[in-house]
Amino acid sequence: MALDLYIGNKNYSTWSLRPWMVLKVFNIEFNEHWIQFDDFSADGAFKQYARAIHPTATVPILRHHDLVISDSLAICEYLAELFPDLALWPAQRDQRARARSICAEMHSRFTQLRQLCPMNIEADLSHIGQQLWKSHPALREDVKRIQDIWAERPHADGFLCGAAWSIADAFYAPVIMRFLSYDLPISSKNQAYVDRILNLEATQIWMNEARQEHCFVAIDEPYRTQAEP
Amino acid sequence: MALDLYIGNKNYSTWSLRPWMVLKVFNIEFNEHWIQFDDFSADGAFKQYARAIHPTATVPILRHHDLVISDSLAICEYLAELFPDLALWPAQRDQRARARSICAEMHSRFTQLRQLCPMNIEADLSHIGQQLWKSHPALREDVKRIQDIWAERPHADGFLCGAAWSIADAFYAPVIMRFLSYDLPISSKNQAYVDRILNLEATQIWMNEARQEHCFVAIDEPYRTQAEP
Ligand SMILES: N[C@@H](CCC(=O)N[C@@H](CS)C(=O)NCC(=O)O)C(=O)O
Ligand SMILES: N[C@@H](CCC(=O)N[C@@H](CS)C(=O)NCC(=O)O)C(=O)O
Repeated sequence: MALDLYIGNKNYSTWSLRPWMVLKVFNIEFNEHWIQFDDFSADGAFKQYARAIHPTATVPILRHHDLVISDSLAICEYLAELFPDLALWPAQRDQRARARSICAEMHSRFTQLRQLCPMNIEADLSHIGQQLWKSHPALREDVKRIQDIWAERPHADGFLCGAAWSIADAFYAPVIMRFLSYDLPISSKNQAYVDRILNLEATQIWMNEARQEHCFVAIDEPYRTQAEP
Repeated sequence: MALDLYIGNKNYSTWSLRPWMVLKVFNIEFNEHWIQFDDFSADGAFKQYARAIHPTATVPILRHHDLVISDSLAICEYLAELFPDLALWPAQRDQRARARSICAEMHSRFTQLRQLCPMNIEADLSHIGQQLWKSHPALREDVKRIQDIWAERPHADGFLCGAAWSIADAFYAPVIMRFLSYDLPISSKNQAYVDRILNLEATQIWMNEARQEHCFVAIDEPYRTQAEP
């Protein structure tokens, strides 16, 4: 299978994590290419390298023979078409619709959480999280909506849109990383779901590799001045 | 066909326009419900009405029997599944992947264009557009990328992702409205495409109804103080 996935820093790149996780969890073979983050200036190394692959010049990017696809959601839809037997989306039509709805919601909303709490897997930012939680009602609203989405899962001991893990769970995995780093509240009803995601082998691999990068990118670091030793 | 689509003001609601246009262009029967915009305060009429239909409390929302779907992209995916013979997405796999990619790009990017130039079909904001164009390089970049996407269409006399109109064209229709109101530049190569979209019966109906609303919503009006007579 000639699938090439271009991703950014594992410590920071929420968008990259999604299709990477889909490929890993479903055991789909692929080649992984790492494009190191910088300040994303138009003529910097990241943008030049990424632009040569796709005009959006963002990661993730998937290449499959001649076809080059930008955007995490579009990549996941393509993979779902490529492997219809794996049920990357939930098999049930109504849960599939719900899965796409919450993925698109993640794609276009939750701006406070995304801006105030950038993903930073290696960092312990719990003291920052406490301050943000107190001073930003819109952040609390984002967290509440996410908790509601998690709580609505059809089987308490399953995943977001059914008994099986699906693309929807991949889209909410980066949020779990933020909840951990910033120590945001997780309801007891949702804790088991969060643990189930954290215990997946794919999650473990990503998190370990993120911790081993030791690569401090200033624009992703509103709260620290250097990487952890 | 028991399809109910909840939309916002036709003059302002870019997200509503997308699935509405898909339903119209493909001649799919549906009931249209209008939820009038206000200031979107949590206990205002809009939010209360919309929240009773779906917890995101945003439009568009599609109801099909017991299933209620929020988000324009998720709604379009659902419609594509419901009517497989109509080819709502392009029939060719590579163009379908490209269509999803540019739709997701519209969903998650072009923030400058979306913030600085809110859709306002009835308004002539060409003088504002000129000022914005001069002072905002990031707006010029958004416009350039959109022009590139339009120019990449596989048939010069066709639509964005093939000879036939598809969901991708619906996603870029609101941008055309912005280009008109703010008089943003359209390359000669793309003018024919823009005209083709403007001449669709669905576009004409939406624009006429937008002009007839005469409903001034302050939060969508950074540049005017009242509706046009
Ligand atoms: N909606 C896109 C967003 C991709 C995105 O913004 N990726 C970030 C890295 S996580 C990026 O490449 N940023 C570079 C830039 O914005 O210039 C997706 O889902 O793939
Ligand atoms: N990504 C969503 C966005 C929906 C959205 O933000 N709609 C606006 C109207 S165009 C809305 O309902 N705004 C109310 C609010 O933000 O409170 C979609 O594609 O449907």
